[in-house]
Amino acid sequence: MPSLCAAELWRRSERWDLMGRDLFRLKDRHDAEYCLGPTHEEAITELLASQGHLSHKQLPLLLYQVTRKFRDEPRPRFGLLRGREFYMKDMYTFDTSEEAAHLTYQTVCQAYTRLFARLGLNCVQVQADTGNIGGKLSHEFQLPAEVGEDRLLVCGDCAFSANVETMEPGQTDCPQCHKGTLTESKGIEVGHTFYLGTKYSHIFNATFSNPQSKPVVAEMGCFGLGVTRILAAAIEVLSTEDAIHWPGLLAPYQVCILPPKRGSKVGHLEGLAEELCRSLGSAIPGLRGEVVLDDRTQLTIGKRLKDAGCLGYPYVIVVGQSAAEDLPRFEVRCQQSGETMFLSREGLMDL
Amino acid sequence: MPSLCAAELWRRSERWDLMGRDLFRLKDRHDAEYCLGPTHEEAITELLASQGHLSHKQLPLLLYQVTRKFRDEPRPRFGLLRGREFYMKDMYTFDTSEEAAHLTYQTVCQAYTRLFARLGLNCVQVQADTGNIGGKLSHEFQLPAEVGEDRLLVCGDCAFSANVETMEPGQTDCPQCHKGTLTESKGIEVGHTFYLGTKYSHIFNATFSNPQSKPVVAEMGCFGLGVTRILAAAIEVLSTEDAIHWPGLLAPYQVCILPPKRGSKVGHLEGLAEELCRSLGSAIPGLRGEVVLDDRTQLTIGKRLKDAGCLGYPYVIVVGQSAAEDLPRFEVRCQQSGETMFLSREGLMDL
Repeated sequence: MPSLCAAELWRRSERWDLMGRDLFRLKDRHDAEYCLGPTHEEAITELLASQGHLSHKQLPLLLYQVTRKFRDEPRPRFGLLRGREFYMKDMYTFDTSEEAAHLTYQTVCQAYTRLFARLGLNCVQVQADTGNIGGKLSHEFQLPAEVGEDRLLVCGDCAFSANVETMEPGQTDCPQCHKGTLTESKGIEVGHTFYLGTKYSHIFNATFSNPQSKPVVAEMGCFGLGVTRILAAAIEVLSTEDAIHWPGLLAPYQVCILPPKRGSKVGHLEGLAEELCRSLGSAIPGLRGEVVLDDRTQLTIGKRLKDAGCLGYPYVIVVGQSAAEDLPRFEVRCQQSGETMFLSREGLMDL
Repeated sequence: MPSLCAAELWRRSERWDLMGRDLFRLKDRHDAEYCLGPTHEEAITELLASQGHLSHKQLPLLLYQVTRKFRDEPRPRFGLLRGREFYMKDMYTFDTSEEAAHLTYQTVCQAYTRLFARLGLNCVQVQADTGNIGGKLSHEFQLPAEVGEDRLLVCGDCAFSANVETMEPGQTDCPQCHKGTLTESKGIEVGHTFYLGTKYSHIFNATFSNPQSKPVVAEMGCFGLGVTRILAAAIEVLSTEDAIHWPGLLAPYQVCILPPKRGSKVGHLEGLAEELCRSLGSAIPGLRGEVVLDDRTQLTIGKRLKDAGCLGYPYVIVVGQSAAEDLPRFEVRCQQSGETMFLSREGLMDL
């Protein structure tokens, strides 16, 4: 979907005015007006409507993209945590009925929950405001963190949790179990889901033909994951002062191999390091494409170890002095535990 | 690199005025001016300069991205061939000397030549104008095509070829061998390379320290591949009226498997189709991730075959009537040749 979104579409949904100064606006050489898409409800719904001939048999339809989004934030800050230009995975869903749309909504929320669990991020799904996107139901996925700008209320007795925005000011009793007390904490919003109903499909006439061949307006949902923000939030929550710790799945590479400095006493081991890089990547299925060689051998091992710490590879293998001995040993540094081990080649393969 | 580029950087390179109406311009909520980046010479050079402490040992440095670019074309047309928003792979290179920069320039041009050859696109490298990017030397990679908007002159006797823009009007004799006659043809520009010299590095003070620890301004090159346009150009050149033919490497999947229509006489073969999809993908290394199942089994085989033609899978395998026989046969359609074969399971594995 385009970054340059025609003003006309946004006027039809009334978001052209509603979004106010959060929307980046511009004109082309013919004075036609555009905004830089912060989300794409209008674009996708109009696209679907323009295709025509959608059958109920083709629903549910789930369409997604991962693209840059733009929002003229009044206070961009915390680097990638709140930027004006960022990557978002946004998905738009179309269903035959409110019931079917709720099922899709739950399925996607469950997928998001699993996704964050696999990343090792303890996210909380909280009730949220629908904001300018609109709709009938909304949840945020919040990563608890002191630096977080969202305030959450969590019940001590039941599963209730919500963004403060959705609550009465000063409310401390749980509105769900009516027993527990609500405790406030801070979070970083890393995902947001909306059940939209027919807000956009009605405006753009996105219909499907039902079994009786009558046109019916589709029920919609939209689902966002803040890709850039997940990276920044994960670093914020997992890292230490000294080194970046990535969730394993997000690390740029699992293993970084450092050959010796060119011209040093063990400089002749450069070939061994290269060979090790290739064989680790091919012998261990989980490491395919996950081993990188830092071949900047004009730099010292120390300088490259420091860079490796800044990049956050879970494992760094140094091919140095001890690899030149009769029984070659490789120095393996584990970023997570801070431990250093000396392993034989076989030991490496078992790691 | 950001899509939103600060006007200040573009004023320093004087391209803010030079680009005229081709540049999309906008203001943020604080009235600061930006353009939507059509390329990123300014951004990358300023970024490099801001890092400081670059050593000659770290050069050559080649930095690339694949992102959306924006150009307010006076006449956007031919769909993706000339859009105002498109994907480009752009690379910027930094070298210690003019000589080293020329070597880098040649290396990248050779890589581009190999890339187009692997795609099966007979591109021609022609001398080109440096346009608003500037610099000392430039080549375009042109894909000969009737729909192309560029006019090329190619010598019949030697390897000389150039964009008409770079030549004297009406010139018909080859300026290189002085013997051959120049013939005009049309092409689609799919790549563009520039040796920039120090145009940008001088303005932004992008320097490195030489072996004597003195700061020296870096020699730059920039290299673009029109990702979106390559897709469109390949289709334009290779396809027929009836079906899309992709270069093998660009096809969304190499093989599409069509299970029978749900509820049809052979509907029970759906599981067989799914199993075939999995085993083709795992048994044949080249097909890993390259086999897709069109599981829209509410649609007829005929409807899905038509869609497959529109998507341009090189091979379509139909699991239908003949797969239910004692000696199961699968209908295999080859998009390139238009042939249909009936193969056993073993035959498929040998395909």
